[in-house]
Amino acid sequence: MPTPILISLDAMGGDHGPPVVVGGVRDYIRRHGGEGVRFLLHGDETAIAAEAARLRLDAQVFEIRHTDKVVAMDEKPAQAMRRGKGSSLWNALEAVKAGEAHAVVSAGNTGALMAISKLVLRMAAQGLERPAIVASWPTLRGVTAVLDVGANIDCDAEQLLEFAIMGEAFHAAVHGVDKPTIGLLNVGSEEMKGHEEVREAGRLLRANTLGLDYHGFVEGDDIAKGTVDVVVTDGFTGNIALKTAEGTARFISAILKEALTSGIQAKVGALIALPALKTMRSRIDPSAINGGPLLGLNGIVVKSHGGATAKGFGNAIRIAVDLARSDYMAKVSANLGRLDQMIQSAATPPPESVS
Amino acid sequence: MPTPILISLDAMGGDHGPPVVVGGVRDYIRRHGGEGVRFLLHGDETAIAAEAARLRLDAQVFEIRHTDKVVAMDEKPAQAMRRGKGSSLWNALEAVKAGEAHAVVSAGNTGALMAISKLVLRMAAQGLERPAIVASWPTLRGVTAVLDVGANIDCDAEQLLEFAIMGEAFHAAVHGVDKPTIGLLNVGSEEMKGHEEVREAGRLLRANTLGLDYHGFVEGDDIAKGTVDVVVTDGFTGNIALKTAEGTARFISAILKEALTSGIQAKVGALIALPALKTMRSRIDPSAINGGPLLGLNGIVVKSHGGATAKGFGNAIRIAVDLARSDYMAKVSANLGRLDQMIQSAATPPPESVS
Repeated sequence: MPTPILISLDAMGGDHGPPVVVGGVRDYIRRHGGEGVRFLLHGDETAIAAEAARLRLDAQVFEIRHTDKVVAMDEKPAQAMRRGKGSSLWNALEAVKAGEAHAVVSAGNTGALMAISKLVLRMAAQGLERPAIVASWPTLRGVTAVLDVGANIDCDAEQLLEFAIMGEAFHAAVHGVDKPTIGLLNVGSEEMKGHEEVREAGRLLRANTLGLDYHGFVEGDDIAKGTVDVVVTDGFTGNIALKTAEGTARFISAILKEALTSGIQAKVGALIALPALKTMRSRIDPSAINGGPLLGLNGIVVKSHGGATAKGFGNAIRIAVDLARSDYMAKVSANLGRLDQMIQSAATPPPESVS
Repeated sequence: MPTPILISLDAMGGDHGPPVVVGGVRDYIRRHGGEGVRFLLHGDETAIAAEAARLRLDAQVFEIRHTDKVVAMDEKPAQAMRRGKGSSLWNALEAVKAGEAHAVVSAGNTGALMAISKLVLRMAAQGLERPAIVASWPTLRGVTAVLDVGANIDCDAEQLLEFAIMGEAFHAAVHGVDKPTIGLLNVGSEEMKGHEEVREAGRLLRANTLGLDYHGFVEGDDIAKGTVDVVVTDGFTGNIALKTAEGTARFISAILKEALTSGIQAKVGALIALPALKTMRSRIDPSAINGGPLLGLNGIVVKSHGGATAKGFGNAIRIAVDLARSDYMAKVSANLGRLDQMIQSAATPPPESVS
């Protein structure tokens, strides 16, 4: 891997554009040092340069690639694919395709990012219709990667295995865990539980041809317990689990806030306990876990939340840098090749039956 | 409906047996008055009578039906079906089958209760393989009924409509809401979102032949918001959503507790705010929402959590009484009949195509 790592940024994406993207670059450098990392900023040159000057960003660490064209946050994927060529989002991806940059980060429109990434970079995993989205889920034991959380609605056993391979490589690269453990999300831990797709995926993972550290089936409450490092599920179930958890967290925060402001005595207690409550909040701070990679593409693409702060965007950059520095792409490619062989040999009748 | 309402109880079910079941009867009478309600207690006469004496339960309100036989909490459903005849669980259900009692409450083994209920009472809904389980979900606006949360793994559009019909009648009976609103759980609100089964169910509900108040698709975070009164989903997704929410709630409680005991200052603050924190806890108190009916049977069956307290069991009794007193069974039966007609007329080719 050539030095320095070059990260391609869609500077116009997200709800805030250059202030958050350029601010994210500064935040990343502050926290992690800028050594060996440079940035390509795609978008309006004047706006980006003004922001870089205001934030006193070292001119050595970045280069601006001007374009007037922007994919709007509410643009439909089909329209973005037709009209998006030459936009900051498209150009950011093209820089990875051309081998110039090592990874892309964008806070833009998710649908458009998925569609244009697929068009420009192509899928590396045969079975996947669309890139898989990973959620980094705070747990009692750290962070668990959950995928897919929304892109691939109907998944067969092969797709679930592709998620397992990509999720394992992602978690190892970003969290420095040597051999992440993997669980399949299901309604119980016994072998006969769940629908056919998840049971078949379980059988294939137990056979262990791929060399993954497979723990078995896990249930919904195992996610927040941190029972495994990587939780694999289809995009329908994963999306509903993620949004249900977000809804539950918001519900509890709301009733906690209501309780702690319900009278003078409660308010006094809350004020005294405030530093501790703030520490608690930081454990579920969205900006500390911002940055969800789109997995399964021929290239590293990290999606930042559209409303992320500069600190949040800086975290998405960190994830892109960690992935680019690691052997993530090579590992995924090797394991997907082994999966292909496994599926093909399972489809070929064994010699005895043709003799 | 004859007076009094007779509730058939499996007195030996659950982790605690008679103390919780008889305690639940006392708790129900204390809170709601015992007028017009009597209880049949199935199980070990000596143990039940001792408990009733200890709790000074009025001999007028209950009758004991002795049996030595008990279905164990860890007994497999198939084994329970083979060997369970004459057990407290089986006899409690037989009393409803015979038309003697109006509803059953059991804190026993869920798998055995489902299997024996189906065997004794039979399914009323054609499409259902097993009874559907309803979760009463605390929300910002009260309580939302979510079903199925675990029994029917693969569901087609017809089954989802059966859940909508049963969930609506249940919510109306137990929460006194005249016309509960219904949402289908999905990954987005647009018509083209989700897999074929949920889209087809959405089309059928929008057509509104059943006269339900259909709101549209809802997402995971809509459950805790209380966007609709009844959330309909397949048993796989529903089970994972419910357990993910429980896991999230436990995770937040754990980090809140850790924060509030992290030092002297935090502890003092927590102590002062304690009454408010207790009020908050009562809003998510499991015993206040204990009691999940098994829907789709020819009879009212309410499952109590195996580890429920007497107060929790009393709440499950309240749900059984509310269902028995309402027009729930008649309404479900009428609507399932209309659904059958609708499905049959959809399956019959229209006259033009045969002319």
